Amino acid sequence: MFLRNGWYAALWSHELKETPVAKTFLGEKVVLFRGAGGRAGALEDRCCHRAAPLSLGEVSGDYLACGYHGLKFDANGLCVEVPGQDHVPPGARVRSYPVHEKWNVVWIWMGEVAKSDVAKIPDMAWLSDPKWTTTPGRLYVKSNYQFIIDNLLDLTHVAHVHKKTLAGDPREATAPTRTERLDNGVRVGRWMLDFVPPPLFASAGNFNGNVDRWQFVTWHPPGIVYLDVGCARAGTGAPQGDRSQGISIWSSHLVTPETKHSSHYMFCFARDFKLDDAEMSKLLFEGSKATFLEDVGFLEAVQTNRVDGSLDGLIHVAADAAQLQARRMLDTMIAAERS
Amino acid sequence: MFLRNGWYAALWSHELKETPVAKTFLGEKVVLFRGAGGRAGALEDRCCHRAAPLSLGEVSGDYLACGYHGLKFDANGLCVEVPGQDHVPPGARVRSYPVHEKWNVVWIWMGEVAKSDVAKIPDMAWLSDPKWTTTPGRLYVKSNYQFIIDNLLDLTHVAHVHKKTLAGDPREATAPTRTERLDNGVRVGRWMLDFVPPPLFASAGNFNGNVDRWQFVTWHPPGIVYLDVGCARAGTGAPQGDRSQGISIWSSHLVTPETKHSSHYMFCFARDFKLDDAEMSKLLFEGSKATFLEDVGFLEAVQTNRVDGSLDGLIHVAADAAQLQARRMLDTMIAAERS
Amino acid sequence: MFLRNGWYAALWSHELKETPVAKTFLGEKVVLFRGAGGRAGALEDRCCHRAAPLSLGEVSGDYLACGYHGLKFDANGLCVEVPGQDHVPPGARVRSYPVHEKWNVVWIWMGEVAKSDVAKIPDMAWLSDPKWTTTPGRLYVKSNYQFIIDNLLDLTHVAHVHKKTLAGDPREATAPTRTERLDNGVRVGRWMLDFVPPPLFASAGNFNGNVDRWQFVTWHPPGIVYLDVGCARAGTGAPQGDRSQGISIWSSHLVTPETKHSSHYMFCFARDFKLDDAEMSKLLFEGSKATFLEDVGFLEAVQTNRVDGSLDGLIHVAADAAQLQARRMLDTMIAAERS
Repeated sequence: MFLRNGWYAALWSHELKETPVAKTFLGEKVVLFRGAGGRAGALEDRCCHRAAPLSLGEVSGDYLACGYHGLKFDANGLCVEVPGQDHVPPGARVRSYPVHEKWNVVWIWMGEVAKSDVAKIPDMAWLSDPKWTTTPGRLYVKSNYQFIIDNLLDLTHVAHVHKKTLAGDPREATAPTRTERLDNGVRVGRWMLDFVPPPLFASAGNFNGNVDRWQFVTWHPPGIVYLDVGCARAGTGAPQGDRSQGISIWSSHLVTPETKHSSHYMFCFARDFKLDDAEMSKLLFEGSKATFLEDVGFLEAVQTNRVDGSLDGLIHVAADAAQLQARRMLDTMIAAERS
Repeated sequence: MFLRNGWYAALWSHELKETPVAKTFLGEKVVLFRGAGGRAGALEDRCCHRAAPLSLGEVSGDYLACGYHGLKFDANGLCVEVPGQDHVPPGARVRSYPVHEKWNVVWIWMGEVAKSDVAKIPDMAWLSDPKWTTTPGRLYVKSNYQFIIDNLLDLTHVAHVHKKTLAGDPREATAPTRTERLDNGVRVGRWMLDFVPPPLFASAGNFNGNVDRWQFVTWHPPGIVYLDVGCARAGTGAPQGDRSQGISIWSSHLVTPETKHSSHYMFCFARDFKLDDAEMSKLLFEGSKATFLEDVGFLEAVQTNRVDGSLDGLIHVAADAAQLQARRMLDTMIAAERS
Repeated sequence: MFLRNGWYAALWSHELKETPVAKTFLGEKVVLFRGAGGRAGALEDRCCHRAAPLSLGEVSGDYLACGYHGLKFDANGLCVEVPGQDHVPPGARVRSYPVHEKWNVVWIWMGEVAKSDVAKIPDMAWLSDPKWTTTPGRLYVKSNYQFIIDNLLDLTHVAHVHKKTLAGDPREATAPTRTERLDNGVRVGRWMLDFVPPPLFASAGNFNGNVDRWQFVTWHPPGIVYLDVGCARAGTGAPQGDRSQGISIWSSHLVTPETKHSSHYMFCFARDFKLDDAEMSKLLFEGSKATFLEDVGFLEAVQTNRVDGSLDGLIHVAADAAQLQARRMLDTMIAAERS
């Protein structure tokens, strides 16, 4: 059901401060903490002594101390101190998980430690590059993570689910898409040339005529999706690579399974316009969150109708190509790591 | 556990307007909708494409359109349109259920379509006849439907459960009843001659002396119960059929299983007095609802003590005759349709 | 999982008045009631007729009458009356449980009736002796009862869980304890000589210098724990038995399993000072409750991490000796009564 050998987004970096944070990933209870030196760590959220969640404890130097009896653990999960006695009992340790901080995200590796190569974290430079202004957020979704990824790889739901929030050119509903299989992922997207811009883009980019719009959705397994969306004044060469007359948003979606039936959903818009405009940040944050909540309504409803998270027995349509490719690729990877 | 080949009350007619309505009947998720032409339809509440509940969609002409990707279905469950592509994939359909509107009720048939004979809907003319004024309502009960029917066929609980709301002549607690097996149901009832009228009847009928009261409960399988209750000035011939000196209420109870542990409970008083008196309507609606909520308290408590809905291992008393006959009849019908 | 042949605390005596009280003990639904003569009774909370909880009924003389159809039961569970008919059907009875009132507690015996010897109720005279003023309360804990007993037999958690509420002499964190096996229980405790008194004790006992403190925790199976705690002016002979220069509190904890995952937790401070001081009573009641709620936070968190209530696979430390002895003794008793 889950790919274990892959980097999952655990937290936005700014979410991990002095206080330990409890989260369940892939059905396992994890505590994340940041030692005094600033390094992030992740341990099983269950003390090996009396099973109290370590997340009820507190950071003590580079250690995490249990709040029940004060046992201290290092970032490798080793117990280094038991208050009131001189020795630490043999075997006193909890599971630790590799973590790595990059692109303002704390990434966690739930699989074999030896395979946790940080080079496998995809390039999402816009999340930490000062040339982009970001508006990160988080949702909790009572849905299998695969339905969320399906939804992101499917541009046709926009005209229905988001008809009140993302109204654009009516031709958008049927503009064709192209799906591409990557070495490590799937991409689907389209150009919509000489289209009426959606109101938000028109105002943000000061467009007073039609635009060339682009939408490219990229998925990297297991749960990373980002959308490269934007528009430029029509006929100024954007399809050929010149975006100088346009504006761009990288819309990032980091989906991490909590259980088979629930997911953590971290989202972020990164924009290359009005970088210091707090009003624009507020508008984009609240607008994106409201839009994603429209998806959540459907995703949670689908979950109640498909408890196992599969698409078995369902009918597919042409627009499902990208999500079907992504599911096949992920299924293959999961099968491979199990065999 | 459930009789499938039978008409169940799905909704009061006035509950089905422009917006589709989601209900679970017999453990199956159903969406009811009313097409532009006014005809009611009922489909499986799960799109065959991505499993979204169709009840999140909207009526489009005589079709129901899914809110996720816009697929349209007719009242037979056939998908007639997939936005963005010319053909409809083979096999694109959802289950449909026969529905029929009668007596201001939308009835649904959860069994074999070929057996859904609308002539089998019992006569409940008082629900739509202008000679009667009705006050319909609805409760949701976390109890197996059979406990609700048991309760309605049992006149002896009134003196205990409803002692604060239905106080009448003290002799009522022990007035004998007579149970009768019908071709298609069970009836239990009694006459109470020369009794003090309950306050509501006394006031509604302007009785200043004793009355002859009647209470006749009729059950038709699977979940239809109606009570013919009333009283007439004592000695004016009501037991012989002359109700001209009295007032009548038909108290209807339409019980439809949601699951093994929960039920939809539609109730309605139909009266033949003070037809246009809005105060009387309010009094009867709120009074009947408050009384039925007293039953609900017990029914839900019984359910927690008897999860399987059965009476196995319980002791029976004389007053249980009608409910035992009804359960036997229903068990026989369920066994017959399964063999 | 549960010892059946043992006295469990059901209620404080003052909690059982005219109205029947429903509680689940050891997974069984029980109704407690006090007949007109004042005697407490306990029955299965499920009428043998239509399974309604008898706790929805009412006391009628020395009987408990079902609220659904009025059947009356005596304290032995025998049905003595069915309204509306002359005879009581054979077999009409519900299970009854031995109860005994002592020390202002209603005790219940969930096992074999023949073994319910009231002499086995431990001496907790301070709960009803006028030389002590008591401040009883009750908590509901979503935790297996054994974790609660573990916690009470463990003095080392105080320095961590209660560091904000029970701050005393810093040497307390490591003061050694001594564990003692009793014929029927386990005791663990310690003397802390010439220690700074905690603020509450200092103020209550008017101590202006150091004190000799004592803490002795006694557990009797299955769920009785009491703490003999107090302090006396240092060097006045308390360790040798002269408490005349000190103050004492008996802190009682009566833990009764509701289910494998939840417990009733009755607590009481009995003090021998400022007996008539209502402010002191309020202070001790609210202070003790707030402190126990700190434990509850950990206990419920441990429960989510250890659904089976066991310590299997956990690491033990030196301070766990008392709780491990208690668990072994209880396991032996449970095994014995099952074989």
